[in-house]
Amino acid sequence: MPNQQTTFADDPSTGSGLDLLLEIKRPRLRAGLIDALRDAIRSGRLAAGTRLPASRVLADDLGIARSTVTECYAELVAEGWLTARQGSGTRVARLAPPRDDSSVAPAADAHPGKAVQGLLPGAAEFAEFPRQQWLAAARRALAAAPYSAFGYGDPAGRMELRVALSDYLSRVRGVRAEPERIVISSGFHHGLALTAQALTARGARTVAVEGYGLGLYRALLSDAGLRIPPLLVDDDGARTGDLKDLGADAVLLTPAHQFPTGVALAPARRADVRDWARASGGLILEDDYDGEFRYDRTPVGALQGLDPERVLYFGTASKSLAPALRVGWMVVPESILPEILAAKGRVETVSVLDQLTLAEFVTSGAFDRHVRSRRQNYRRRRDQLISALAQSSPEVRVKGMAAGLQALIELPRGTEAAVVQAAARLGLMVSGMAEFRHEALHATAAVHDGLVVNFSAISDSAWEGALDLLCSVMPAPGRQRPNRPSRSRR
Amino acid sequence: MPNQQTTFADDPSTGSGLDLLLEIKRPRLRAGLIDALRDAIRSGRLAAGTRLPASRVLADDLGIARSTVTECYAELVAEGWLTARQGSGTRVARLAPPRDDSSVAPAADAHPGKAVQGLLPGAAEFAEFPRQQWLAAARRALAAAPYSAFGYGDPAGRMELRVALSDYLSRVRGVRAEPERIVISSGFHHGLALTAQALTARGARTVAVEGYGLGLYRALLSDAGLRIPPLLVDDDGARTGDLKDLGADAVLLTPAHQFPTGVALAPARRADVRDWARASGGLILEDDYDGEFRYDRTPVGALQGLDPERVLYFGTASKSLAPALRVGWMVVPESILPEILAAKGRVETVSVLDQLTLAEFVTSGAFDRHVRSRRQNYRRRRDQLISALAQSSPEVRVKGMAAGLQALIELPRGTEAAVVQAAARLGLMVSGMAEFRHEALHATAAVHDGLVVNFSAISDSAWEGALDLLCSVMPAPGRQRPNRPSRSRR
Repeated sequence: MPNQQTTFADDPSTGSGLDLLLEIKRPRLRAGLIDALRDAIRSGRLAAGTRLPASRVLADDLGIARSTVTECYAELVAEGWLTARQGSGTRVARLAPPRDDSSVAPAADAHPGKAVQGLLPGAAEFAEFPRQQWLAAARRALAAAPYSAFGYGDPAGRMELRVALSDYLSRVRGVRAEPERIVISSGFHHGLALTAQALTARGARTVAVEGYGLGLYRALLSDAGLRIPPLLVDDDGARTGDLKDLGADAVLLTPAHQFPTGVALAPARRADVRDWARASGGLILEDDYDGEFRYDRTPVGALQGLDPERVLYFGTASKSLAPALRVGWMVVPESILPEILAAKGRVETVSVLDQLTLAEFVTSGAFDRHVRSRRQNYRRRRDQLISALAQSSPEVRVKGMAAGLQALIELPRGTEAAVVQAAARLGLMVSGMAEFRHEALHATAAVHDGLVVNFSAISDSAWEGALDLLCSVMPAPGRQRPNRPSRSRR
Repeated sequence: MPNQQTTFADDPSTGSGLDLLLEIKRPRLRAGLIDALRDAIRSGRLAAGTRLPASRVLADDLGIARSTVTECYAELVAEGWLTARQGSGTRVARLAPPRDDSSVAPAADAHPGKAVQGLLPGAAEFAEFPRQQWLAAARRALAAAPYSAFGYGDPAGRMELRVALSDYLSRVRGVRAEPERIVISSGFHHGLALTAQALTARGARTVAVEGYGLGLYRALLSDAGLRIPPLLVDDDGARTGDLKDLGADAVLLTPAHQFPTGVALAPARRADVRDWARASGGLILEDDYDGEFRYDRTPVGALQGLDPERVLYFGTASKSLAPALRVGWMVVPESILPEILAAKGRVETVSVLDQLTLAEFVTSGAFDRHVRSRRQNYRRRRDQLISALAQSSPEVRVKGMAAGLQALIELPRGTEAAVVQAAARLGLMVSGMAEFRHEALHATAAVHDGLVVNFSAISDSAWEGALDLLCSVMPAPGRQRPNRPSRSRR
């Protein structure tokens, strides 16, 4: 598997809990791993002093022999890139060569990884908000804050947070994000609103969107006066090859895990959209809403790394921490940065106190540890969902499932509305695919029935009961379901 | 003095630190105080269980004999409105009659009180942010928050905060604010932006503004496509009698302390603007930016209490706590509430965590205590400013000074620009009146020279040095100042 992208993260019980996205560009694993680590250090994505995962953990994560990792580490120590000290583990050397951005671009044809997502089985609940750790970070941040930090703040966002995110996004998502190009928002919705404003300010008329997605965002773009032609979505993600016929000024994508179908944008499609952007001057809007949550060994790096000048990248704390924080971030191409800042206005709107706290939360490593801990929980739920459904309804297909907070359960044609209604009657709120379908696609043949199940937004105590209910409403063989024609598509 | 409005607040060392705006409607003090207290209790502005200030403290604040207060308390205890218990002080009885909103409207011709303000001598610094108390409130708020509180939140704002503000604004500012009509914003700028959007959505074309004010807000209204004709400002505040000739759909005012001249809107002017609103259907936008900070015994209640259906009231935590919080509030007339909520959008943008913390901060009494402590500090600074200037420059006049965080120092005609420049050369940033003048007034004769000095936005350690510098640049008799014609008005 040439040009594989991979992620490793060491075990929280044994290591630093650090997440890292690495690209292995060569077929030979040993040389590939050495190159990937060298690139990450050279580019600054692995900062001096960073502790690398234990060789056993990295080997497990990559699915390779531990001896291979040991050899790679030894070679890089010999070359001066890493230092190894008893009791302190393997760390990035402090005298690493200077940053060289040109070496950071991920391979365009990275292995996709069958990523999958879905949506809410119940109201959003965030049982796992790390209250104690958050308060501890707030205490440290407030104690360290200078007087001036309590003022109105820089409308682009607090620099402490932008520096922390620059390091984090580079390390975990392969995003090339100088702090100066990061703009803090109150979340993706706010960021998209700023972008719509920036785009219309420069005369844009059309933003292509995925054929399935949140209607809220389509409405936001429409309300801003933009046309929003849909791209069909199949098992390789959005059909970005169709972009060249749409005359779009920009395209809104969820490349890592298409929302809500849960597929990753295939390598050829990634190349298509990049080529379209370069040829047309169009802008790619990358909604990386849950990039932190991956369960397999071949996650997909951010598209932004391919061409930071053509991709406007969006991330959020809503999935990793809680929506209540109301903090998101954008990594903005130089060319549209003035319009984005103009749209954000002359007065900061995002809590400066929360920005300082989040910066401390990320910098201290608490964020990595929290994401790791939640990921383990979600992975367990994913496994439970798969095995429960396999038992109760062997004929329904659960898509992908290698990443994200949601799963798509494909249903026999024509059964979706009845299943959603049956679930609602039992007090279980699930979303059917119809809820996410682009208005222009309602009449087409390319319509699939399915349930979008968010297995993250429910407390531990409620999860098993919800799973039981879910299985009970599945159209099982021999079980007769109320199956009215989908008169009232949601 | 009939129909006087007054405020009392007990001494933090002896009482609850509670602030309260009371209206005394009759000339006879005893009967007036009894009536005012009865009204406050009947209307719910003094909630059951609230501890009243000690009689000595209230007597001091009102400038009346302590025995008068004692008699009033005794009579209200006898009537069943209050309870008195050894060691627990005098409190509002739990069996108070039900709320009756019709009795709450403050007198239209309340005594004005010579309120005064000003602006920044240096960058905004907020040395006194109550870090420990804020963190303690955050800890209690997070511990008490239900799972659902960590979700996206109600775009109108978190109900805990709206309830806390409803009580606080009623008690301290005489605002009639049911929680359902309170909308949380990220501060006045955000609130004004929402209002501009709501007004244009209903076809408004013109918003009259004060002839002196922040250009940032005038620009916001202009950018929204609104005409912004100015009202002249004199020692009685904005000349609201001129409104009837302007064809305005709304008027933006700072009635309690005109910003930046520091005068209060005179009773006749308050009546004028109310009459205009009722006759024309126009909306009054009341920017009550520092209503918490009053130093005399005759503060001015919010205009909103006069006619809650014709006044959109704005408050903010930026002056009382810190801008870094990015939280403000609006009390919105029923008639425009749908447009305001539509402008705010479907997704909350203000930190829900901060809203929960602020609700706890207000409800626990920490907010009253903090405001009280800051007010004492600012009052001391105000006194220092007055006496220092009286000594160094007896010919300059400091206006009003009975409230607010700023002072206006009137200067001899033609000297303003030179003084501002001289201060800047010494590293002292002060603002001249020219900085706040409406663009349409630059050519008129009604131009006064002056310095706007914010004595709140500087740390204790820097204050005295800044004061010395300020005195040193004043045009003193016999001292020759560089006095070029004001070629480059700022």
